[in-house]
Amino acid sequence: MRRGLFITVEGPDGSGKSTQIEYLRNFFSERNTECLFTREPGGTAIGEKLRDIILDRNNREMCDMTEALLYAASRAQHVNQLIRPVLEAGGIVICDRFIDSSIAYQGYGRSLGDSVRLINELAVGDCMPDVTFLLELSPKEGKSRIEENGQDRLEQEKIEFHNRVFEGYEKIADLYPERFVRIDAGRDRMTVKKDILEHMEHILRDRGF
Amino acid sequence: MRRGLFITVEGPDGSGKSTQIEYLRNFFSERNTECLFTREPGGTAIGEKLRDIILDRNNREMCDMTEALLYAASRAQHVNQLIRPVLEAGGIVICDRFIDSSIAYQGYGRSLGDSVRLINELAVGDCMPDVTFLLELSPKEGKSRIEENGQDRLEQEKIEFHNRVFEGYEKIADLYPERFVRIDAGRDRMTVKKDILEHMEHILRDRGF
Repeated sequence: MRRGLFITVEGPDGSGKSTQIEYLRNFFSERNTECLFTREPGGTAIGEKLRDIILDRNNREMCDMTEALLYAASRAQHVNQLIRPVLEAGGIVICDRFIDSSIAYQGYGRSLGDSVRLINELAVGDCMPDVTFLLELSPKEGKSRIEENGQDRLEQEKIEFHNRVFEGYEKIADLYPERFVRIDAGRDRMTVKKDILEHMEHILRDRGF
Repeated sequence: MRRGLFITVEGPDGSGKSTQIEYLRNFFSERNTECLFTREPGGTAIGEKLRDIILDRNNREMCDMTEALLYAASRAQHVNQLIRPVLEAGGIVICDRFIDSSIAYQGYGRSLGDSVRLINELAVGDCMPDVTFLLELSPKEGKSRIEENGQDRLEQEKIEFHNRVFEGYEKIADLYPERFVRIDAGRDRMTVKKDILEHMEHILRDRGF
């Protein structure tokens, strides 16, 4: 009995997701439209504990399948405890990273293949996004935007990894054109903002929000 | 290239697994046969962190799919970091609970069904047990053996849950008769010990240990 609107924001590291999500937050606030902003990994108390384990630079011995299963576990909790109840009540949810991040980073980046999609489809059940904004940025540009300091375990990966992640995102977006809105994130942030907000206006109007 | 011997010990709460595993430890020690004893959830540093989250009584909001995915994540780490390397080096591993616990507790007990088997087969890959001792004890007897104090989140479940776990174990053992050794755990501990050690002698002799 889902009636709400579920939007996810995806993209490689350095693509400006955080900045654009802040703009979206202001947009909803000025429009007086209620909207739950959340993020992955995390989003719940249990999810935040798992986030700490996943992103801890000291956990270098973590194997790829463990990482993929932890993201899925965090996601299952997030969906059941937070996202689905809001959607069932007719609300709007905007989530910073969701299932496509796992498919791009673990499935393609870590070369775990289709098992990641399978695991995550079991984790989310019927709770798939209605709309996904993909902030497209070449791995080279993304890399140059990320500063050396403050990198977490995933951001430290080699350029080949980020190339596979980029290709993964492109393939998923090709597979689900009805869900994906591709945004050229190589432009200046105010141009990207204008682009995203115009799309958002349309989406909200079409769905009666 | 697996050459070793992988043995798991399974059974419902109160079936005496811990006691019998202590006897096995002494048996291997007296025989001067090297054997790695380990347990689930846990077994690795990352796995122990996950064990704390899974068994914490305060995490009451944890949903069933999250729990199943966390057990699988802990298991993937355990297999890749600890169990598979020992087996590849020709060693013996005895593990207190493994994949069958997840299928019995989450698949049957929590009624998550076949998804638990799927997730766990992805988690363990080719690293399935060669022999599984199943300590069979009726849920009623098991319940009466567990004291009120010191129960973790799982042990606090209702009798219906434990009935489903028991039935789950029986069904898995029926499916894989070549792997399972059924042990009547309703007898006194020294009789159970004698039974298990006789089986163990045969298993080691057959495999040239």
